[in-house]
Amino acid sequence: MPLVKYSTPTDLKEARFTGGLLARRQQIALDTTIPATMAKTIETGRLDAFRLTWRPGQPKKPHVFWDSDTAKVLEGMAGALALRPDPALEAEYDRWVDLIVSAQQPDGYLNTHFTAVEPEKRFANLHDWHELYCCGHLIEAAVAGYTLLGKRKLLDCLCRYADYLVSYFGPGKHRGWPGHEEIELALMKLYRVTGKEQYLELAQYFVNDRGTEPHFFIEEEQTQAGGSWHCTQNQTHAPVRRQFTAEGHAVRAMYLFAGAADVAGATDDQELLQACEAVFENVRTRRMYITGGLGSCFAGERFTTDYDLSNGAMMYAESCASIALVFFCQRMLNLTGEEKYADVLERTLFNGVLAGISLSGDRFFYTNYLEVDENLCCYNDGSPVRKEWFDCSCCPTNFARFLTQMQQYVFSVGDTELRLHLPVDVEIRHQFANGMVARLAVTGGYPYHGKVSIAVLEDGEYTLSLRLPGWCRNAVVEVNGERVYAGAGGKYLPLTRKWSKGDCLTLGLEMPGEFIRCNSKVTTNAGRVAVMRGPVVYCVESRGLSGEVRNFLVDTDRPPELAPAPEGLPSDAPALRLFGQLEQPDETEELYFVGRPRCAPCTALAIPYALWNNCGPTNMAVWLRTTGASA
Amino acid sequence: MPLVKYSTPTDLKEARFTGGLLARRQQIALDTTIPATMAKTIETGRLDAFRLTWRPGQPKKPHVFWDSDTAKVLEGMAGALALRPDPALEAEYDRWVDLIVSAQQPDGYLNTHFTAVEPEKRFANLHDWHELYCCGHLIEAAVAGYTLLGKRKLLDCLCRYADYLVSYFGPGKHRGWPGHEEIELALMKLYRVTGKEQYLELAQYFVNDRGTEPHFFIEEEQTQAGGSWHCTQNQTHAPVRRQFTAEGHAVRAMYLFAGAADVAGATDDQELLQACEAVFENVRTRRMYITGGLGSCFAGERFTTDYDLSNGAMMYAESCASIALVFFCQRMLNLTGEEKYADVLERTLFNGVLAGISLSGDRFFYTNYLEVDENLCCYNDGSPVRKEWFDCSCCPTNFARFLTQMQQYVFSVGDTELRLHLPVDVEIRHQFANGMVARLAVTGGYPYHGKVSIAVLEDGEYTLSLRLPGWCRNAVVEVNGERVYAGAGGKYLPLTRKWSKGDCLTLGLEMPGEFIRCNSKVTTNAGRVAVMRGPVVYCVESRGLSGEVRNFLVDTDRPPELAPAPEGLPSDAPALRLFGQLEQPDETEELYFVGRPRCAPCTALAIPYALWNNCGPTNMAVWLRTTGASA
Repeated sequence: MPLVKYSTPTDLKEARFTGGLLARRQQIALDTTIPATMAKTIETGRLDAFRLTWRPGQPKKPHVFWDSDTAKVLEGMAGALALRPDPALEAEYDRWVDLIVSAQQPDGYLNTHFTAVEPEKRFANLHDWHELYCCGHLIEAAVAGYTLLGKRKLLDCLCRYADYLVSYFGPGKHRGWPGHEEIELALMKLYRVTGKEQYLELAQYFVNDRGTEPHFFIEEEQTQAGGSWHCTQNQTHAPVRRQFTAEGHAVRAMYLFAGAADVAGATDDQELLQACEAVFENVRTRRMYITGGLGSCFAGERFTTDYDLSNGAMMYAESCASIALVFFCQRMLNLTGEEKYADVLERTLFNGVLAGISLSGDRFFYTNYLEVDENLCCYNDGSPVRKEWFDCSCCPTNFARFLTQMQQYVFSVGDTELRLHLPVDVEIRHQFANGMVARLAVTGGYPYHGKVSIAVLEDGEYTLSLRLPGWCRNAVVEVNGERVYAGAGGKYLPLTRKWSKGDCLTLGLEMPGEFIRCNSKVTTNAGRVAVMRGPVVYCVESRGLSGEVRNFLVDTDRPPELAPAPEGLPSDAPALRLFGQLEQPDETEELYFVGRPRCAPCTALAIPYALWNNCGPTNMAVWLRTTGASA
Repeated sequence: MPLVKYSTPTDLKEARFTGGLLARRQQIALDTTIPATMAKTIETGRLDAFRLTWRPGQPKKPHVFWDSDTAKVLEGMAGALALRPDPALEAEYDRWVDLIVSAQQPDGYLNTHFTAVEPEKRFANLHDWHELYCCGHLIEAAVAGYTLLGKRKLLDCLCRYADYLVSYFGPGKHRGWPGHEEIELALMKLYRVTGKEQYLELAQYFVNDRGTEPHFFIEEEQTQAGGSWHCTQNQTHAPVRRQFTAEGHAVRAMYLFAGAADVAGATDDQELLQACEAVFENVRTRRMYITGGLGSCFAGERFTTDYDLSNGAMMYAESCASIALVFFCQRMLNLTGEEKYADVLERTLFNGVLAGISLSGDRFFYTNYLEVDENLCCYNDGSPVRKEWFDCSCCPTNFARFLTQMQQYVFSVGDTELRLHLPVDVEIRHQFANGMVARLAVTGGYPYHGKVSIAVLEDGEYTLSLRLPGWCRNAVVEVNGERVYAGAGGKYLPLTRKWSKGDCLTLGLEMPGEFIRCNSKVTTNAGRVAVMRGPVVYCVESRGLSGEVRNFLVDTDRPPELAPAPEGLPSDAPALRLFGQLEQPDETEELYFVGRPRCAPCTALAIPYALWNNCGPTNMAVWLRTTGASA
């Protein structure tokens, strides 16, 4: 039985959003995020860095990670062009590609910093200098340009660079591990579109050599021997296949294990897959915020220990880490077919990822706090307001490429099976290897609404597997009015039929607003509840409350009631009215005192977490106090 | 009206503990802490550093802060000898002094690192290299040796060093600010015992020049211009007299303002005093843990923002910071006579300070967490277990000198007034300038017990001012059986009498176990209570509970009940029995779930916070969840 069970079609045009949340967010990306990040890439000198004309003393010195930003925006441009032809954008795309390709050295090497600034330091410090990370992002951009637009120029260029890496790194050649992983999953993409085994072998080398003895970073003298913090920080504390917990820098860890999952699948490496599964389970059950945010500590932007998930000033939950978790989930879902991966994927996508970008499409969070209060010091980036750009601008550029390609998470396919992961409003057309075509129109407004209709648009015989989400306790599936399933979620429901044009399926996912508790080992959430409806995590902003959210106590005996979205937020995203008490501000200025706070009845409007901070600065909380801690 | 209202007698032998908490802790210091820290000082090479024989390549290279550790232990040895003559210890004391003095350079300079290791870098980096900090601690040790033991050798030596500083720093000479303050309060001590104005003037210079423009640390090129974090970190973001909040490194801030208060008092500088008062109020009402711990963030060991007082992994509350707060309080109490300074002093002494050292006297906390759980990552120093020593061992050495001299906090005097701050078990003998003698025996077991007896042991006419603590809502004072006061605390009660031998006063301080709430702006404590009895903060250890303290919910409708101290803890320290519920551990391994935790009735034994972690490793919490958050 092959390790890889399902695959995501290479041609992302097989799914096209037709309305609702993801269509809206993608439209904003096309209209705003892509132009905004392109402008920043140009304005900051990141694009012109490829001219290689920087000289000492000049401004805009190419930074070691700049190429990755340019590559990610370029990948986003490819995604945008695939969704909506735009001659001006395409011309600009071609200009960027020409510029990038022009910077390639005769031996295939391609990096602005280590060509224009410190050419003598090529591959001298893999631990710190993001060289292979930049290469990985250029490869991803090249693969996107080829698969989405059919453009080969950048792909050929990056193949030459990859060939150079193949000639340089590996057994019998130079040892080397990237300090910031990314090259692994990129080489696997390159392998898949080119079929060239050497890219698979190099990815395999990077995954398999990492963390083995002798320790390359100690040999490279970038890490002190015994510096366990540094080793865990970049996942070199043990061979990758001996890593069973998520450690260190969250983005790096997820990029690594996404790449490792690719390698495991392509090489039928059961042992490596088991490590991936263990790391995922550690994330899912111990180290993941309810939003799919990852990284409990701003210092090191990293995982810490099991159940250490504080909500405020300390936390990180970098936007890129949630995006990376989606990558990892997608690969594991295809490898195993297990529904739990889709649960984490959609939790992360609808909450942790989308919170990172404003509704306007041009403001970004680096850190995604679950609690914001003016009395909490935000240690890493000052006030929690989305910003246009960052010196280290990985998050904005990640959104540029993520949002324009997120239709890839809607479904996967097997030989004669189409697995619908996200029943969002979408049109799907997939042709199986046997020639049979699945063509479907999904509507209903998921994830904000739970009544999904699936219209069959073309005759065909295949298995349509509907995901019944793990959060759903009561799912009902009907085919042409006939009930074929009623029960709990947490699985895929395979429906094998000769489907006819005009067939209609309905998927009813009961989706009440609910109070969610946290494992009490997470001390910070003890006695608190979060509010979810389906896969959507809610929060309460102080804005609109008659007091501060820190003083609001929700009465968990009164279920949340659906309410219209407040002004300024998309009207299809229902709010939830919560009932409870508001503690009255202390009249004393004392810090510590004897006495009981007075309370008054109060309602609060909870909104989807991904939409917070779109109507002006405000305090906010996901985990709410309750009127009775044990009630 | 002079700025300085009261003073602490120079001769600490005027008060002598006779029993109870402070006597016990001091006895442990004599028996264990002093020998243990002496041994470590020798073993680590800190003492032998004064031989100036270190050569490149050898181990035990004198570190820039080593001299301060040796000085603090030496100061502790002087304190110990004053309490209990010990010829062997005295010989060792003299040997240390000889060794230290032998390292003095012909020009008076005295520093092991910048003589033996980097002589060319003398005063080259005041920002980072602790040179003046080391000098300050040597001065403090010298003053203690002189005032407690009458030994002049080290004092004369440090006067020569101070004279050298006077010739080097100041207006028209070199500018300079210490990166780590300490020299200011030390020079003020030297000024007080020698009467030499130049030491006052140099202290005044260090306080008044600090933070003025042009910014010395920018001139010194140790701080980036505009690096506001660095400027606040060492209190150079504004002139000291324009600082009204407690910023940056907590120990540095408190040492600075202790010295600034000294300078304000000695120079009748009302403006400087107002800055000290503002900083103190900011600490007291916004930035102080309930234990008197200071510093909410391990990164920078620093103050953060108002009401940012998280309890666990993030916090610092360095033992030295609480010790420094006691220093600051003592000075402000003498300057102003206001009772609130004594409140913070005793809160800090009985809780934040004493928690930092084990009952065995040879184990120390650097960080004093208010919440410990195995699921919280302790970012700064790993597991929360007291340790014998640290590479940077400021805390253990601070205990060596603090514990042997803490009788200085018991009372202050005015012209004909004795103000009893801490009614602990103590014998006091003070002779006023007019020849009148106050001789008193205080008993009752304070702070663990609230019925204090004060026996007059000698005839005399003076004002005895009894402190009625701010935490006490019902204080009763009787003189020879006659009630002279009944009412709330928060003041001093002056009793002017011709006192006769055999007079007996009783001070009844009602001291119920109480639930304390925190200003709700401290989001982390919202809905939680702490338990105090008098000035003593309690905590609950998981050890002894049938579950984890994170799952214990206290019922605040049931007052704490006195209970015998648990085995292993001093029998005079009552425990408090709390009633409530214990949440049953989740049966699911899920991180997030729908459902309500089951509860079962449960009692918990709270013990004084200062005694926690003396019976083996355990989880612990000061701020407890409640059965009803709004009840």
